[in-house]
Amino acid sequence: MSNAGQINAFRIEHDLLGERDIPAASYWGIHTLRATENFPITGTPIGAQPDLLRALACVKQAAARANRDLGVIAPERAAVIVQACEEIMNGALGDQFVVDVIQGGAGTSTNMNANEVIANRALELLGQEKGRYEVLHPIQDVNASQSTNDVYPTALRIATCFAIERLLAAMAELRQAFEAKAHEFDDVLKMGRTQLQDAVPMTLGQEFLTYAVMLGEDELRLSEARALMVEVNLGATAIGTGINTDPDYSPLAVKYLAEITGLPLVRAANMIEATQDTGAFVQMSGVLKRIACKLSKTCNDLRLLSSGPQSGLNEINLPERAAGSSIMPGKVNPIIPEVVNQIAFEVIGNDMTVTMASEAGQLQLNAFEPIIAWSLVKSISHLEAGCTTLARNCVSGITANREKLLEAVKRSAGLATAFNPVIGYEAATRVAREAIRSGRSVSELVLELGLMDEATLAQLLRPEVLTKPYRYVRPVVPDVVPAAPINDSSEVPPPPPEEVAH
Amino acid sequence: MSNAGQINAFRIEHDLLGERDIPAASYWGIHTLRATENFPITGTPIGAQPDLLRALACVKQAAARANRDLGVIAPERAAVIVQACEEIMNGALGDQFVVDVIQGGAGTSTNMNANEVIANRALELLGQEKGRYEVLHPIQDVNASQSTNDVYPTALRIATCFAIERLLAAMAELRQAFEAKAHEFDDVLKMGRTQLQDAVPMTLGQEFLTYAVMLGEDELRLSEARALMVEVNLGATAIGTGINTDPDYSPLAVKYLAEITGLPLVRAANMIEATQDTGAFVQMSGVLKRIACKLSKTCNDLRLLSSGPQSGLNEINLPERAAGSSIMPGKVNPIIPEVVNQIAFEVIGNDMTVTMASEAGQLQLNAFEPIIAWSLVKSISHLEAGCTTLARNCVSGITANREKLLEAVKRSAGLATAFNPVIGYEAATRVAREAIRSGRSVSELVLELGLMDEATLAQLLRPEVLTKPYRYVRPVVPDVVPAAPINDSSEVPPPPPEEVAH
Amino acid sequence: MSNAGQINAFRIEHDLLGERDIPAASYWGIHTLRATENFPITGTPIGAQPDLLRALACVKQAAARANRDLGVIAPERAAVIVQACEEIMNGALGDQFVVDVIQGGAGTSTNMNANEVIANRALELLGQEKGRYEVLHPIQDVNASQSTNDVYPTALRIATCFAIERLLAAMAELRQAFEAKAHEFDDVLKMGRTQLQDAVPMTLGQEFLTYAVMLGEDELRLSEARALMVEVNLGATAIGTGINTDPDYSPLAVKYLAEITGLPLVRAANMIEATQDTGAFVQMSGVLKRIACKLSKTCNDLRLLSSGPQSGLNEINLPERAAGSSIMPGKVNPIIPEVVNQIAFEVIGNDMTVTMASEAGQLQLNAFEPIIAWSLVKSISHLEAGCTTLARNCVSGITANREKLLEAVKRSAGLATAFNPVIGYEAATRVAREAIRSGRSVSELVLELGLMDEATLAQLLRPEVLTKPYRYVRPVVPDVVPAAPINDSSEVPPPPPEEVAH
Amino acid sequence: MSNAGQINAFRIEHDLLGERDIPAASYWGIHTLRATENFPITGTPIGAQPDLLRALACVKQAAARANRDLGVIAPERAAVIVQACEEIMNGALGDQFVVDVIQGGAGTSTNMNANEVIANRALELLGQEKGRYEVLHPIQDVNASQSTNDVYPTALRIATCFAIERLLAAMAELRQAFEAKAHEFDDVLKMGRTQLQDAVPMTLGQEFLTYAVMLGEDELRLSEARALMVEVNLGATAIGTGINTDPDYSPLAVKYLAEITGLPLVRAANMIEATQDTGAFVQMSGVLKRIACKLSKTCNDLRLLSSGPQSGLNEINLPERAAGSSIMPGKVNPIIPEVVNQIAFEVIGNDMTVTMASEAGQLQLNAFEPIIAWSLVKSISHLEAGCTTLARNCVSGITANREKLLEAVKRSAGLATAFNPVIGYEAATRVAREAIRSGRSVSELVLELGLMDEATLAQLLRPEVLTKPYRYVRPVVPDVVPAAPINDSSEVPPPPPEEVAH
Repeated sequence: MSNAGQINAFRIEHDLLGERDIPAASYWGIHTLRATENFPITGTPIGAQPDLLRALACVKQAAARANRDLGVIAPERAAVIVQACEEIMNGALGDQFVVDVIQGGAGTSTNMNANEVIANRALELLGQEKGRYEVLHPIQDVNASQSTNDVYPTALRIATCFAIERLLAAMAELRQAFEAKAHEFDDVLKMGRTQLQDAVPMTLGQEFLTYAVMLGEDELRLSEARALMVEVNLGATAIGTGINTDPDYSPLAVKYLAEITGLPLVRAANMIEATQDTGAFVQMSGVLKRIACKLSKTCNDLRLLSSGPQSGLNEINLPERAAGSSIMPGKVNPIIPEVVNQIAFEVIGNDMTVTMASEAGQLQLNAFEPIIAWSLVKSISHLEAGCTTLARNCVSGITANREKLLEAVKRSAGLATAFNPVIGYEAATRVAREAIRSGRSVSELVLELGLMDEATLAQLLRPEVLTKPYRYVRPVVPDVVPAAPINDSSEVPPPPPEEVAH
Repeated sequence: MSNAGQINAFRIEHDLLGERDIPAASYWGIHTLRATENFPITGTPIGAQPDLLRALACVKQAAARANRDLGVIAPERAAVIVQACEEIMNGALGDQFVVDVIQGGAGTSTNMNANEVIANRALELLGQEKGRYEVLHPIQDVNASQSTNDVYPTALRIATCFAIERLLAAMAELRQAFEAKAHEFDDVLKMGRTQLQDAVPMTLGQEFLTYAVMLGEDELRLSEARALMVEVNLGATAIGTGINTDPDYSPLAVKYLAEITGLPLVRAANMIEATQDTGAFVQMSGVLKRIACKLSKTCNDLRLLSSGPQSGLNEINLPERAAGSSIMPGKVNPIIPEVVNQIAFEVIGNDMTVTMASEAGQLQLNAFEPIIAWSLVKSISHLEAGCTTLARNCVSGITANREKLLEAVKRSAGLATAFNPVIGYEAATRVAREAIRSGRSVSELVLELGLMDEATLAQLLRPEVLTKPYRYVRPVVPDVVPAAPINDSSEVPPPPPEEVAH
Repeated sequence: MSNAGQINAFRIEHDLLGERDIPAASYWGIHTLRATENFPITGTPIGAQPDLLRALACVKQAAARANRDLGVIAPERAAVIVQACEEIMNGALGDQFVVDVIQGGAGTSTNMNANEVIANRALELLGQEKGRYEVLHPIQDVNASQSTNDVYPTALRIATCFAIERLLAAMAELRQAFEAKAHEFDDVLKMGRTQLQDAVPMTLGQEFLTYAVMLGEDELRLSEARALMVEVNLGATAIGTGINTDPDYSPLAVKYLAEITGLPLVRAANMIEATQDTGAFVQMSGVLKRIACKLSKTCNDLRLLSSGPQSGLNEINLPERAAGSSIMPGKVNPIIPEVVNQIAFEVIGNDMTVTMASEAGQLQLNAFEPIIAWSLVKSISHLEAGCTTLARNCVSGITANREKLLEAVKRSAGLATAFNPVIGYEAATRVAREAIRSGRSVSELVLELGLMDEATLAQLLRPEVLTKPYRYVRPVVPDVVPAAPINDSSEVPPPPPEEVAH
Repeated sequence: MSNAGQINAFRIEHDLLGERDIPAASYWGIHTLRATENFPITGTPIGAQPDLLRALACVKQAAARANRDLGVIAPERAAVIVQACEEIMNGALGDQFVVDVIQGGAGTSTNMNANEVIANRALELLGQEKGRYEVLHPIQDVNASQSTNDVYPTALRIATCFAIERLLAAMAELRQAFEAKAHEFDDVLKMGRTQLQDAVPMTLGQEFLTYAVMLGEDELRLSEARALMVEVNLGATAIGTGINTDPDYSPLAVKYLAEITGLPLVRAANMIEATQDTGAFVQMSGVLKRIACKLSKTCNDLRLLSSGPQSGLNEINLPERAAGSSIMPGKVNPIIPEVVNQIAFEVIGNDMTVTMASEAGQLQLNAFEPIIAWSLVKSISHLEAGCTTLARNCVSGITANREKLLEAVKRSAGLATAFNPVIGYEAATRVAREAIRSGRSVSELVLELGLMDEATLAQLLRPEVLTKPYRYVRPVVPDVVPAAPINDSSEVPPPPPEEVAH
């Protein structure tokens, strides 16, 4: 069909705007070429969104199977389309997805890129040259019964599910790292703080457990948001009315898609609404923002607690990961929490982008889903990377400065709160202020002022009394009986009789 | 120092900073006075947050009952505290809550304002003068077993539940208004649009139903976010360790609080985490942002569809609510959707404020809950007002320009999509472009070019075929049989036999 | 005209929608009534924006004068309009501006409210009853040659100038408070920190001067943004073409407006662009956001430096402004910085609202200026309040813990950086790490290891050497000569000869 | 330990944490290696920020020259450092900058990466093997007199200046494209719109000129923001005190840097403030957000005006750039404006990220500048790309539907505003509403009702009267004399005498 060496360098393709030369080796075609010319924005191709490529291939394969069953495309064409999709699902041809991640056209260029790559790979499987669209057509065959407007959001939802799976795993790893530290620090008494001011005692284990609990809650919220992703509009075609589809197509395609992806996909109850709606993406992005807020707060705490080493709080030590300064010898900085803070700031910015893109949808379609897709990809993958590096390169190696923490509790005026129910708020206030003024301990002062006897004092200063609810009997009498612990304090063993005897 | 008339003008109160004159008639006291001096920010007092006042009174009453049962405060004191709270719950003394809505101190000033008002009202009920705190003390008695750090967030969660209830009702009213219109416009055929370009036909009823469905989904998401609000940290006191409380206090107080509020409140599983965590507020604000996005998109659509009256889309007419211009005679503007757009922009801004305040929490407490509270109050109440005015003053009075819409469908090149499965994408493209170029209809052209016979054409142009999935049998033969409708099309009656005969 | 008591309760007014009863005593009329019915959103009336009322009255007065000069309205009518405006400029009739601050209609309701109040007050001045619009008409006369679309943005720009004036004064007061403290703390040596880790020495004066310098820069930026406000579109009328105006009207009205307001107002070079453009508001809001960022950072620092009092950095003491806790005796919190943080979060959220409202403008007008106006009013006035309370109730009373700070410098491993040029980065690293490990001072170690002699050490540890650029002569010789200070160090006196002799 | 072939594969480097194998061919060293292990976040290396690499090389070269002059590093070392920097400035070794764009450590890893690459290239130039740091050291020599804390922000400011230059050029190109269209459409009369409702006439040229004027203003604002970038803190070292530098170093280094970059750089007046301050970046990002807002609004307008082609406004035609749909034949979409909208949404999100990162700075340093850098790079370069594609692929090819636009003006009820000064607002209102109701023209109605004679009508309907200020003489008399045009209307020729004679 061709002879001179040069002659194979290009093939000619046409669309409604005319003809163009396409590199003969390219799996992508004229629609993709135009897209690259129209959108030279970021330099990052959609190939950088492997979950989206995989999801698109899943959708195209499901559609091909449904079309085959319904007689919309011939079995032999369907077979090679299915195989081409399978290959892409397995990671092949990623370099053929060259359209920019930021693109106009509501994802049409992404869909066309996929249609062309699949068609040309399918032609190849048929032993045909690329570009022989009269044999197997990117639109008539690969895109049969489809529109960008159902394919793209469906793929985006599936891709998001894939990515969230990995984020959940990274969050769980981080949560477990905090849980392990909480267990390790269970007996480390320290001063709790509110508004950065000394408050009342707690354990470092309690403090670290908090970070684990926060993550656990975030995992639940993220799972809930992911559950909203499984409602797809495949079969909606252009605006949700399902024009150009067989009535059996949509249920069948979604059934196949659920099988292929292993996700519990369901058809949207109202396909017109589902085609224009980006609410689930806003919700997802909002939850990612929530996770970012919490992670950032946690990292702020870690940086604060490890501040110093000499002129800071210096309660914990983060593992050293790098020389911290090109000028200050020996300085080591909290670089892992710092990178997570920055990821959080990016995620919060991405959420604003998603919000604006969502609000800007008009009538039967949101044309701005590509930037939603790209924002979500970044937020999810960077949060995953942040959780992983935080777990492995920071949290798992944290150590506590136990003696320093205990000393701080002993000398703290914050202990006066514990005397509150016994000596009253006003007397406790006087003691606390005098302690801060004089540098003496509240214990010393309370005894000196005759506000309490030593036995009562000793009783009140027991760690399990300081860090849990406790039943005080008034007026102060020698036979203070500790309460049976309930709820939070359920794991605390009852105090031995000789202690109670005081 | 004073004589006769003067004597009643002021009473003297003291705190750790010294003594101050308090107007004798004031129910608030010295802590409130200092707060008003420290925070002269917005001029809007917390009395402008009636849900929060009511919720605070509920919390204080629950605490008083629990304290009474546990012997922490005497029954006679508890009784008058309970009664004072009951009065505030019913709307009394709102003008005594004078601290600014934007305040430092993590809500302490709000809590102190409540403690003082309740104490002085309780003293009054005991026949005592205001300020006789040796009889009944704002902190020792009204605040017994409590800290701002458990009282304030608990009250904020309850207040949010109260407010969300009204928002849900307003959303339901708006949804029903859209549903009624969807029903009314069920038979109005029109052109759907994607990317503001003519796409394929649909009904105006389908378009309006979308808005209702969106609201319905948002109602579900809002209910889910509200469900996260019922987990409270009452009994956590300062940092969540429950210091200064009886082990039975927290469960008992929460039980009473659930009874008083009628909400299914539960104690947080981890009180330390719950005390510092603002995740549920971020989640709530994120859902409000989602609702704002969708409402704004809906209002953008209403403004677009009603644009004109002569040089716009002019598909629907919004009810006239005001003369639209001080210069252009007869001009009427879409002012109700416009006000809702602006509420949406505010809510999205408020969400950013909530996000930043949440991220800024440190260690055992988030000191910035007052701005979270105020932002949520505004977002919820303004969305409620927006939904209500949109339902009553706009949606319920919308009319359709039926003839114009039908004419537009008939002459639209977008009908060519419907011919796609019969004449193919390439031929359909040629027909569509020629129609736009020449101003002739695609129906006329397709017949003229011999691409289809009249019977097939008539069949394809039936409204129920244009706006739903449909089974085409290929190649084109006279006995096209419409598919049995499934899913979306379940309510469409089967076509009469004579039509099928074509 | 009427006598029976009841008969005066209402007057009847009409607009294009029909007739309505208006309370006879109201200066506002039917357009205002409809607005209150259409926009029951926040409960806050535009009367809460006194700068905007004043600016509107200025605009209306300028227009009346120009219209009078050009013969568009009769002198006697102009005279009473001018007087009515004068009264409103002086604060009268504020309670008659009852339209909600969040409103649809691009400000038309605000403009109509002003037109009606001015008309009825002018009628009163003419000895006429309110509502006698055939004598003097809110639109024909008060609004002559005007449209909401030029009046409203012009007034908004003027109002912003008024408000910024006060904000600049508050910022200057805060800056001066920081400058005074910088002077007071000029000789207080302390450790500087980067990434919350101990870095190198500085003075507390240097640290506090930074906050003053930041504010000074922000004042410059704010003044620049205000300068963009003086370009107004008065005379543009509906869309900027100036329809319905005399060619001389716009220049004349702007000239009068500049006189009345005392602002250097100029007509926009392109009135059509100016009528739809909200760029100057976005710019202004962006600068307010910048100020908020910096103020928030400053307040974060103040809270951090004053953390403790025992288990924190405890470098400075904020003045005590209130009892900090309802449970923890003697606790005092950084409530003033905290309230400023929250104002900053609000301002950043408001900026997002302004951004979205600006982006949403369409074609010849931005219909969403009311929410822009309201957001700016809040941002500016709350920042003003925040700066004022921060200056007066916090910064001016800050004290330093001098001894503690000096001790920290002496024992800090961060001093090793000062040895860098003398002993090299690698040796300095070893010394610093050993110091932290062993708790010994770097001075002790560097002498013990023979890395430096005592004279050199003493030289390097002089405060002015530690906190400024310094010329080291290598290799280390006894006659180190300190460099003549330049630039930053210009105010430092040269060291006395005997010190140099070391 | 190693033999033959293996011997060259790795070299060993060490830092305070220990030893590591470095690939022998790598110009980067151990600090870079650790950074890649600590920050596996985005997969995008800092090599993707060529402006930042170039700027860093400029800074390092300037420092080397200053150090050489001051005797801090030996001339022969300085010479090769200078040359290595020169090569990097010219684009060499970009692939050796492998640290992730999102990184902790305040830019230390980026600085270290540069130090190592420059040191090893310099060693190579000296004929030494890479890693022979005893000959020339990345920190002691390349980083001499420097700290990340002055190098990184200085480089970031310079890089931003480089990038802004290109953005300004792209904006100018887009502005000129709009200006050309404004000129082309100067005589195309059309209806202006406010609030999407028909308002009063204007020309399409006026409409397009607006977009050019907006861009021109934005270019000014951007230039102003860039001017804030030239203040650098080079010589500040760790916290701004200039520790470890010669007093002459900073002025000298900045002088060299200005020469090298061609930028009018100046030293910051207060180096401590400058070292921690990110205000200029927030300001820059805020201006980019402003540009994004305006561009997005412009693109919204273009999409709206080109909506249709049959059921939309259809006033203008955007050039066809691609087939718009994989299902709808012949559909062409406004894909270029759509991609610009999405860039705008991204820029607005990036601004939020910059804002949060800026606010989070603490004490003497902002540790979060890497995310600020990356956000700015994206915003600037994507805006540049967006302006370019919008100019070339969209605006330059826009055509107008002239007849349609003229017809719309003729039949518009909006013309009634033009009659306002002649027949009054109330009569004009009646005419306008009757016109809309009946479908008749206001001209026809106004004559039929005897409200105006034909000569007056003809006069009022002249395009230059409809679209500019105009002097009406009252009461209505046959000899209406048009005003001499001033201001906006200065280019309009006086009407010919015969027209005036009417």
